[in-house]
Amino acid sequence: MGLLGDAVVQAVIPLAALVGIGFALVQWVLVSRIKVSNENGYSESLIENEEEGVDDFDAVVKCSDIQNAISVGATSFLFTEYKYLSIFMGVFGVIIFIFLGSVKGFSTQSEPCTYNPGNMCKPALANAFFSTVAFLLGALTSTLSGFLGMKIATYANARTTLEARKGVGKAFIAAFRSGAVMGFLLAANGLLVLYMSINVFKMYYGDDWEGLYESITGYGLGGSSMALFGRVGGGIYTKAADVGADLVGKVEKNIPEDDPRNPAVIADNVGDNVGDIAGMGSDLFGSYAESSCAALFVASISSFGVTHDYAAMSYPLIISSMGIVICLITTLFATDFSEIRHVNEIEPSLKRQLLISTVLMTAGIAAVSFFTLPSEFTLFNFGTEKAVKNWHLFFCVSIGLWAGLVIGYTTEYYTSNAYSPVQDVADSCRTGAATNVIFGLALGYKSVIIPIFAIAMSIYVSFSFAAMYGIAMAALGMLSTIATGLAIDAYGPISDNAGGIAEMAGMSHKIRERTDALDAAGNTTAAIGKGFAIGSAALVSLALFGAFVSRAGIKTVDVLTPKVFIGLIVGAMLPYWFSAMTMKSVGSAALKMVEEVRRQFNTIPGLMEGTAKPDYANCVKISTDASLKEMIPPGALVMLTPLIAGTLFGVETLAGVLAGSLVSGVQVAISASNTGGAWDNAKKYIEAGASEHAKSLGPKGSDAHKAAVIGDTIGDPLKDTSGPSLNILIKLMAVESLVFAPFFAAHGGLLFKIF
Amino acid sequence: MGLLGDAVVQAVIPLAALVGIGFALVQWVLVSRIKVSNENGYSESLIENEEEGVDDFDAVVKCSDIQNAISVGATSFLFTEYKYLSIFMGVFGVIIFIFLGSVKGFSTQSEPCTYNPGNMCKPALANAFFSTVAFLLGALTSTLSGFLGMKIATYANARTTLEARKGVGKAFIAAFRSGAVMGFLLAANGLLVLYMSINVFKMYYGDDWEGLYESITGYGLGGSSMALFGRVGGGIYTKAADVGADLVGKVEKNIPEDDPRNPAVIADNVGDNVGDIAGMGSDLFGSYAESSCAALFVASISSFGVTHDYAAMSYPLIISSMGIVICLITTLFATDFSEIRHVNEIEPSLKRQLLISTVLMTAGIAAVSFFTLPSEFTLFNFGTEKAVKNWHLFFCVSIGLWAGLVIGYTTEYYTSNAYSPVQDVADSCRTGAATNVIFGLALGYKSVIIPIFAIAMSIYVSFSFAAMYGIAMAALGMLSTIATGLAIDAYGPISDNAGGIAEMAGMSHKIRERTDALDAAGNTTAAIGKGFAIGSAALVSLALFGAFVSRAGIKTVDVLTPKVFIGLIVGAMLPYWFSAMTMKSVGSAALKMVEEVRRQFNTIPGLMEGTAKPDYANCVKISTDASLKEMIPPGALVMLTPLIAGTLFGVETLAGVLAGSLVSGVQVAISASNTGGAWDNAKKYIEAGASEHAKSLGPKGSDAHKAAVIGDTIGDPLKDTSGPSLNILIKLMAVESLVFAPFFAAHGGLLFKIF
Repeated sequence: MGLLGDAVVQAVIPLAALVGIGFALVQWVLVSRIKVSNENGYSESLIENEEEGVDDFDAVVKCSDIQNAISVGATSFLFTEYKYLSIFMGVFGVIIFIFLGSVKGFSTQSEPCTYNPGNMCKPALANAFFSTVAFLLGALTSTLSGFLGMKIATYANARTTLEARKGVGKAFIAAFRSGAVMGFLLAANGLLVLYMSINVFKMYYGDDWEGLYESITGYGLGGSSMALFGRVGGGIYTKAADVGADLVGKVEKNIPEDDPRNPAVIADNVGDNVGDIAGMGSDLFGSYAESSCAALFVASISSFGVTHDYAAMSYPLIISSMGIVICLITTLFATDFSEIRHVNEIEPSLKRQLLISTVLMTAGIAAVSFFTLPSEFTLFNFGTEKAVKNWHLFFCVSIGLWAGLVIGYTTEYYTSNAYSPVQDVADSCRTGAATNVIFGLALGYKSVIIPIFAIAMSIYVSFSFAAMYGIAMAALGMLSTIATGLAIDAYGPISDNAGGIAEMAGMSHKIRERTDALDAAGNTTAAIGKGFAIGSAALVSLALFGAFVSRAGIKTVDVLTPKVFIGLIVGAMLPYWFSAMTMKSVGSAALKMVEEVRRQFNTIPGLMEGTAKPDYANCVKISTDASLKEMIPPGALVMLTPLIAGTLFGVETLAGVLAGSLVSGVQVAISASNTGGAWDNAKKYIEAGASEHAKSLGPKGSDAHKAAVIGDTIGDPLKDTSGPSLNILIKLMAVESLVFAPFFAAHGGLLFKIF
Repeated sequence: MGLLGDAVVQAVIPLAALVGIGFALVQWVLVSRIKVSNENGYSESLIENEEEGVDDFDAVVKCSDIQNAISVGATSFLFTEYKYLSIFMGVFGVIIFIFLGSVKGFSTQSEPCTYNPGNMCKPALANAFFSTVAFLLGALTSTLSGFLGMKIATYANARTTLEARKGVGKAFIAAFRSGAVMGFLLAANGLLVLYMSINVFKMYYGDDWEGLYESITGYGLGGSSMALFGRVGGGIYTKAADVGADLVGKVEKNIPEDDPRNPAVIADNVGDNVGDIAGMGSDLFGSYAESSCAALFVASISSFGVTHDYAAMSYPLIISSMGIVICLITTLFATDFSEIRHVNEIEPSLKRQLLISTVLMTAGIAAVSFFTLPSEFTLFNFGTEKAVKNWHLFFCVSIGLWAGLVIGYTTEYYTSNAYSPVQDVADSCRTGAATNVIFGLALGYKSVIIPIFAIAMSIYVSFSFAAMYGIAMAALGMLSTIATGLAIDAYGPISDNAGGIAEMAGMSHKIRERTDALDAAGNTTAAIGKGFAIGSAALVSLALFGAFVSRAGIKTVDVLTPKVFIGLIVGAMLPYWFSAMTMKSVGSAALKMVEEVRRQFNTIPGLMEGTAKPDYANCVKISTDASLKEMIPPGALVMLTPLIAGTLFGVETLAGVLAGSLVSGVQVAISASNTGGAWDNAKKYIEAGASEHAKSLGPKGSDAHKAAVIGDTIGDPLKDTSGPSLNILIKLMAVESLVFAPFFAAHGGLLFKIF
């Protein structure tokens, strides 16, 4: 037994969650002090702190109007999206119930347990019911995470713009605090709901921990299903608008980004919030929920579960609780312990956040490992037992955490324009768009190397120490600082929007320069966030894969059997199929957007001169319709593949599919998002002209800059639609397989049975 | 025992090879009747058949000069390349000898056999020696294949141009016959050398078939090693020149492709011959050699080998012999049984070649299977025995053959501008280069789906019937029509060159239109050829992988062990690393080329006006230097990975690496070459303006056309450098692992042994 008693554990987890929520609310209150109002005009604080030439009163009113338009657009899109998704969730909930209920023919009899056959476990029908409930809870929490994130982001964007008048430091803090609201709300919420579900389910399950934690995996499935549609739908929305706006505005009409004359500009800004914020939130919540579920499931069939050691069982949740506290301290370093005075300090400050949280968390992991785990225990390892010591798990969690840092820093190196890779890409724009694209693709491919070695090493170490439980805990380690990760990630789109609002409100050049600097750092942090999301997804899905294999009763997944190998090669193909769908969707939707924007420029007199207003709503509608329609095929591909593979070809082939899509998808995802991030920042590098080299390529409108804009546009769907959706593909197929594993094990492989 | 006796088999194989060589010579004689001479001027036949306005005498002289320049350039490059490679081959030969010799500590004692422990086998040192010899023979044959192909191609290009004056049909036959010379020479040579090596080695080995066929695998390794450098070096050469020429010529100076004023034009045309012809020839020879070796090795440890059934043992070679005969008949359909009268008929005629050869070959396979194989026998299947019937093998070989056809036709669908995918890509050029690239990438990703299912199905069926032997035979089935495949493949670059020569010689527009039509069909057939190369590579490497696993004595390759999984994920990363290197190399070399071409345009007075001659040699030198320097890092990556993984991490990790690189590399390779092919043909679609839709996008120089040119340029390194090199990466790592398997099994996994 560990040193902490059950009662303490019972108290510590909800306490940490409540602290996290409280901290998020404090941050929110601080942000809300920035007044955006067209009633009172300038707030006192603004007048007091005013540093320089104030933009006129009109600009402030405009900011408020634009913020309102963005918020209304984003809310209405998400409501429409959630309306459709709630139908899907209902249907899929029924599917889960029927499939899992049918495992033992809907019998209501208790059965001997699978891993501990001496005990009696609850009937399969109960597991079906509770899995469905957990699924719906996960979907709900995921929705909430995305929605709240979007709300705070649209609340913060204009406030960031207004703060930019006081200096870059103030604006940075406004954006970062808002990001923190989202980060802490999500981390704390996810933990709290999971904790409460376990305790409520336990009232029914009692001593049947096998059934309890098997049902809880539904939580991860629910979270990831919503995330899939959130990412894909939001990604198509935002990039259709962005690409469409750029193709006509920047390329044809030669007007700046976010110019209010561009009819697609509101849709573009709405898109940042529904795609990069709400989608990202759901995605990382999904990873978090899944790695927790995978760890809990594997633990439940280990000695923890058999001896009913509640404190040790809760180890994954306590790690997450510790993470919230550590991130809270880390946040203070950015907002209170230091101040940004110059644009150069933004990126280092964000990078420092990663380093501080990682260093502190390592100590936190050590503490949690020594206090909650027994000094030695046994784990289930595909049919055999494995003896593990508590310090082994310290290494498992820590290596995941540090691998996350390595991935984050590598991503930064390849996507920030402070280093040579992006500068080389910018330089290749001299000879036109073609070389820019060739160099950008090569950069993305190359950026895969270090992350893969980092992931491979984490897998080897954590697996050697603690089998699949070790991998699940490594994933959770990478996600333990999720609150900080999300804060710096959400900071990006908020800054992007702030810049958009400054441009649209016609604020002075100086303000726009500051928000651009915030945004450039945001591009890098967005890439880092995606790196984390992908890295953790790889570990999570491997853990889920292991849990699936255990649950399905497979002893080996042998590549040398044809059943497994065809799964492997087809699985490796799925990320390509999926990317083809999402990229084509963005392309087609963008073409529609281009036509609409052109139509408005051609038919609305005075639009180009700025005397007439464009019809923003029509563009919003095009993005909305396209994303809702186009998210169905890729969504169906991901949701149906495990069901079809498992039912028709059986668990071995499905195991192959999961392994194949995992090892191939990780590469596609990392290279796509880094290529896109690099192109975006290569363009910003030329635009900013901060060095002699950059100046020789610019200014805006030069041939090199035009080539860079083409690269940036190509990168949009890569980095914001197909790339980040792929990590959901990997995770979701794995968690779905895990949830349906009892059914596949009982009734799967129809095709091979017939022939 | 099969129905054919050993003596018949001994006669049939060399006979078929000689027939193939004879047929190639006949085709060569027919091509050589087209006179290109600046002594006699017009040949008689030309005057007789002249159809229309003859280009002036100067043009013919020019054709001859240009052909000469290309031939000299290509020969000199290949000689330089081979000079460096011969050093590499020597060094690597020594490595093979030392590694394999050290397996039993350079002992000269005979040992009990591995699979048939009752018998005595030759010492490991002998195997080391003969493996080295086989390696060198493979390298030599590969070199010869590439070199002869290049020779005939540079002999045929100007002849095709001249024949184009008589009509498109004559030009087509000239190009196709020349392709056939290469196809038949290669197929027959490969077979003959392999056959002779086996018989010579047998004099020493006698009854030790295990050692004999183990040593023979060195032949495949030699073939593929040369192919790797041929593909990568040639690919960098050709694309550096092509991209460099296009970027300045087409984009900046607005002069047509292959304009003689462009200093890089000769380098570009040389590149087609050293890259697409010599590289492709070596590549497919490598596939052929490897699949034969894999099949022979697996057979040698099966009942064939144990009972010394020579006829059955030779089944793979007899299949190839039959292939030569079938391809011979097939060729007559294109050259003698029908005639092309209109440009529209070119592509269908080439497609028909595939279909005819496949249908006829199916019957051929049936005959060979029934006559040479015993009606039932047993195969080695990772430690167990598997009973197999002769008609099982008929299905194995046939499914590979037909899967090749499916891959070929799918590739054609996605890369020919007769169908909607390429037309959609062309259409997306309306909104600029960015949408063109997005649609093109999506097309490439999508084009992976059907080939992967075809490969997966072949694997499943052939494995189920005859384990790894079945897969090796499926690969050989796909390659059984290699002579035809190579003929239509080599036809492409020959036509491309013919067009270049027409342009450079200043021939009339009509001639250029005809060669353009030949070339457009050639782009598609080149893509088909790459599809075949990749599909067969996938099967071959799986077969080699199986042979490696058998030889290394592994019973399972279990994804659930960390050793295997880290191999899998790192292996899946290698194609990205490799592509990053090759694409960056092309990009950098192209930049150098651009600078040189710009320099010449700026410093040579009268160059743009056509009054002064450019310095072609300097551009040739840049391409040569770049390709020789830049092929080393990617080559080292491929050659060293198996050695490092096997020596340090052991056979399980290496098995993971092979499986990972196989399932991931296939996808990258197919999508890269189809994306590139589609962009090239989208551009040609707009240029040709053959439909209302195409006309609305054109003409040359329109914005849509400019966007299409950018796509085409990006596609160049994808389709001609990184994509096709990847299949060698997959195969070569597998065959290298097989050759070194005895060493890894004995001394590998140092790192895990130490810790």
